[in-house]
Amino acid sequence: MDVMRESLELHKRLKGKIEIKNKLNVKSMDDLSLIYTPGVASPCLEIKNNPKEVFNLTSKRNTVAVISDGTAVLGLGDIGPLAAIPVMEGKCAIFKRFAGVDAIPIVLDCKDTEEIIKTVLNIAPSFGGINLEDISAPRCFEIEKRLDELLDIPVFHDDQHGTAIVTGAALLNSLKIVNKKISKIKIVINGAGSAGIAICKFLLALGAKDIILCDIFGTIVKGSKNLNEAQKEMSLMTNKKKIVGSLSDAIKGADVFIGVSVGNVVSKEMIASMEKDAIVFPLANPVPEISRADALAANARIVGNGLSNYPNQINNSLVFPGLFKGALDARVNSITMEMKVAACKALAKVITKKELSEDYVIPNIFNKKVCKAVSNAVIKVANK
Amino acid sequence: MDVMRESLELHKRLKGKIEIKNKLNVKSMDDLSLIYTPGVASPCLEIKNNPKEVFNLTSKRNTVAVISDGTAVLGLGDIGPLAAIPVMEGKCAIFKRFAGVDAIPIVLDCKDTEEIIKTVLNIAPSFGGINLEDISAPRCFEIEKRLDELLDIPVFHDDQHGTAIVTGAALLNSLKIVNKKISKIKIVINGAGSAGIAICKFLLALGAKDIILCDIFGTIVKGSKNLNEAQKEMSLMTNKKKIVGSLSDAIKGADVFIGVSVGNVVSKEMIASMEKDAIVFPLANPVPEISRADALAANARIVGNGLSNYPNQINNSLVFPGLFKGALDARVNSITMEMKVAACKALAKVITKKELSEDYVIPNIFNKKVCKAVSNAVIKVANK
Repeated sequence: MDVMRESLELHKRLKGKIEIKNKLNVKSMDDLSLIYTPGVASPCLEIKNNPKEVFNLTSKRNTVAVISDGTAVLGLGDIGPLAAIPVMEGKCAIFKRFAGVDAIPIVLDCKDTEEIIKTVLNIAPSFGGINLEDISAPRCFEIEKRLDELLDIPVFHDDQHGTAIVTGAALLNSLKIVNKKISKIKIVINGAGSAGIAICKFLLALGAKDIILCDIFGTIVKGSKNLNEAQKEMSLMTNKKKIVGSLSDAIKGADVFIGVSVGNVVSKEMIASMEKDAIVFPLANPVPEISRADALAANARIVGNGLSNYPNQINNSLVFPGLFKGALDARVNSITMEMKVAACKALAKVITKKELSEDYVIPNIFNKKVCKAVSNAVIKVANK
Repeated sequence: MDVMRESLELHKRLKGKIEIKNKLNVKSMDDLSLIYTPGVASPCLEIKNNPKEVFNLTSKRNTVAVISDGTAVLGLGDIGPLAAIPVMEGKCAIFKRFAGVDAIPIVLDCKDTEEIIKTVLNIAPSFGGINLEDISAPRCFEIEKRLDELLDIPVFHDDQHGTAIVTGAALLNSLKIVNKKISKIKIVINGAGSAGIAICKFLLALGAKDIILCDIFGTIVKGSKNLNEAQKEMSLMTNKKKIVGSLSDAIKGADVFIGVSVGNVVSKEMIASMEKDAIVFPLANPVPEISRADALAANARIVGNGLSNYPNQINNSLVFPGLFKGALDARVNSITMEMKVAACKALAKVITKKELSEDYVIPNIFNKKVCKAVSNAVIKVANK
């Protein structure tokens, strides 16, 4: 299948992948007088007198805004808000399909951090949650942090945490197979943008002790020049041996390689230089840092990437629908690290010990247990 | 039926009147790779290279944002954004039910004119049109005017123009019955907020020459103190005899009374003082300026109000779905006065001469000809 051509044809035919559906079939003036004037005054007053009732009487309770400024869309970069709409709509379709969550695409005609924050604050009352999407680093860190502090609904930058959680789950399951402990392994992450930094932070939260973060200039070391705030913060918690050098220097003897950079930057020799039972997750999309075949040929034991036509697809869609479903249902103010860790472990456990294998370290998105496991994990932490 | 109690029960049961529906039933990894990564990169690039393609490849073409700051909701006033959600959702449900237009409720956590304008500009790329709703006067005039100038999609404040168009249609049909010309009659409008001023402007555009606008302090006269900009503008075009006085002074000898104020401010004596074959539209909701029974008892010939359980319901829902449908389908940048006048005349003509009667001057919203007549009228003007 020529996926690019077919996708364009499909988009031309559908003219939008999502639409509005009325929950009530409005058949009479009586129906109209209940959903609109004069009857609608009644739920309005109920909410005015008790604002929390908005969660019982409106769609706010189940609605997420998928918000992007179009600056970091897929691997395409800053393509602008209009060109970002198909991705946001696709995300909304996935929200509905896998978790029954109603998500609305909102693309922004502004890039300034303060203006994005102000705009999202201004439109927030309609929504039960905010999914930030494809906003370039380092602005995305500040935007998410400030919105999360200022809003009483959960704010989640999926490119960061969705990627981190699903990668974490694949890693936890892979470690079961190779019988290594996360606290004892050496991990190299290539790519120090929003996803790389979020994965790094998340693996530290899962118990990792030895991580080296690399960017296009090589290893990130405490004191390196030209680091942004988030990279500086990471430089204090990673690369404890202060290895200065290129990715190929860093990867020697590593147990795990995670790529969130660009295609074809990892060679077979680099994989061959890793520790025995190497775990290799080249997540660049649509072209991974190294092909599955090459990684396996260079002696990697477990390979997972972002592509749907190979085993072990490490895909955010396994996380964000269930995560928001749980956050909305438990009506949390914020998605905490504890919830993210619980979601990660629950996602890993969807695969039983018996089922687990080198080619099956992460479940398929069409597995119905996935959304339920993730959302229940969030709800359980919230109810503590 | 106790409409208030039943409406509250219905809202509790539905927990939101609208939801998202996927146009494609996503059944396989292949489907996912078409609506999301990697295939979705294809429509993204198509739009990046030719921005107009956004109307062929995304839901923008059929999506309207229903935007309110919750400051002038129904007759309830400034109840805030959360409490306004049920009204906005109801409006969205009506958009879908009667015109197949996908509308999204967005309530704003800000009231400042400049901040509202900036926020709407920032989120506009997602939408094919902006329906402003329940924003208090006089801010609503400036907000609509500026957004209409700055955006390349239609912006329409329904409380102003929807009300004006439907009232105009009912008036045109009523005048056919009483055999009077709009250019020869005396019209009194009570209420000089957004609806009253918009009706006034629109009736002038339809050819009316003699209108007196009243507010709570009495007739609006050139040179009156405490007028806002919009009222000042109207004072130059109305009340040419410069009648200073109360509503009861103004209404004497009038052919038409239109109320967009509050309940029970018009007496039988005031109606009795009008010209023969008086046309009386007391549109305050849920309690009209005078009851239909009292107006008829005081010798009004034709009465229409905003209530669904009486003849001649003068209801915005007859206009906004079809108007936006036409504006979206013709992809206009702006909804012009010519389009509004055409929509008004088309709506009036849905009732044939044979069908026309004192109790049937405006069609029923469930009449399938209504949306089509209004949208076709807009498209016809747009294509000129």
